[in-house]
Amino acid sequence: MTLTLYFAPLACSLATRIALYEAGSDAGFVEVDTRTQTTEDGRDYHALHALGLVPLLETADGDLLAENAAVLQYVAEHYPAAKLAPTDARGRARLHQWLCFIGTELHKQVFVPLLDRKAPPEVKAYALAKAAVPLAWVDAHLTDRELLFDTFTIADAYLFTVLNWAQVTPIKLAQWPAIAAYMKRMYARPTVARAFAEERALFVRELERRGEPLPAVTA
Amino acid sequence: MTLTLYFAPLACSLATRIALYEAGSDAGFVEVDTRTQTTEDGRDYHALHALGLVPLLETADGDLLAENAAVLQYVAEHYPAAKLAPTDARGRARLHQWLCFIGTELHKQVFVPLLDRKAPPEVKAYALAKAAVPLAWVDAHLTDRELLFDTFTIADAYLFTVLNWAQVTPIKLAQWPAIAAYMKRMYARPTVARAFAEERALFVRELERRGEPLPAVTA
Repeated sequence: MTLTLYFAPLACSLATRIALYEAGSDAGFVEVDTRTQTTEDGRDYHALHALGLVPLLETADGDLLAENAAVLQYVAEHYPAAKLAPTDARGRARLHQWLCFIGTELHKQVFVPLLDRKAPPEVKAYALAKAAVPLAWVDAHLTDRELLFDTFTIADAYLFTVLNWAQVTPIKLAQWPAIAAYMKRMYARPTVARAFAEERALFVRELERRGEPLPAVTA
Repeated sequence: MTLTLYFAPLACSLATRIALYEAGSDAGFVEVDTRTQTTEDGRDYHALHALGLVPLLETADGDLLAENAAVLQYVAEHYPAAKLAPTDARGRARLHQWLCFIGTELHKQVFVPLLDRKAPPEVKAYALAKAAVPLAWVDAHLTDRELLFDTFTIADAYLFTVLNWAQVTPIKLAQWPAIAAYMKRMYARPTVARAFAEERALFVRELERRGEPLPAVTA
């Protein structure tokens, strides 16, 4: 059974699209409007996933798997030849650490409130004040490194996806030189460039459909 | 080499203490005052972990491993006989889903701001408004179930630890009957009861040392 990824353009599900492209997967993609909770083929997304969040992956067993770290690890295990995750015990532990760190310290703590149209200014200020410590930690790790591990992993796909959102927030990644250089390499990586370009086009189409202005971005 | 857990009383590191007790581990424990960033033996915790967060686990290899989901999975792998994590592919995927869900939707999104003394009221209100959907999802899963999986796993240790904090927040778990019944079973489980009693005593001692009043709790 072919995998199917339920995604929203430029949401955290972009990380899984990148991982699938890295693996040369023939997965299918179904776009979800998370505001209306409707899939592009007119289904009620809430009936598929009661939390209404993306990503959601229909697995080879026909299961519906949610949560970014779980979906990414499933893809890495499903395509072992792509080596998208370390398989030794120490490497696995470090992968779990990175996935958890990116998901909690960056994604949920900093970026979700900053990206939420309905979050009041106090909430955005609180989230913004939490950004410097974890970003400095990432920057220190990436100094003199090309990637989070020695080769490209699902943690890079996730980190890129989350840090890409900085463009539409007050966070200026240029103040962390190793992060800025890492992101430049990521935007140039063929699988990332392809996934990003495709989802950016879908994102623009989504905004046009909603009659909303395009955010000012630099990349 | 014996494992060593750096923890703060009743913080999310409690989940790892529970897992270690389930495994009959001889791990050592080092208390951390996360406000002063000092260990109980007078060391600078920031020098051990630049993010200053607990848990931190010194592993059998002498590595320092951070992030709750990573530390819990390390303990589960280190003590396979305790069967604290499913080992089949579908079970592992579901475990990843639960760990990620608890860490992001509950721990980081809802409880961290509610427990933060310095969070302004708007931030607490925003966090509180996010509680009902994930808690209803947990409640639905736990209806007619004893545990998250068929047997006790690190996901139960984590879920208990996070939901225990509800006591000092406006979240009343009694409105979700399956969660309330689950928590009652958890408080009665010997390893959980022992870990909770020990850390509650340390928590009280910490408050006394800081000259702060005890929070009003029901359990």
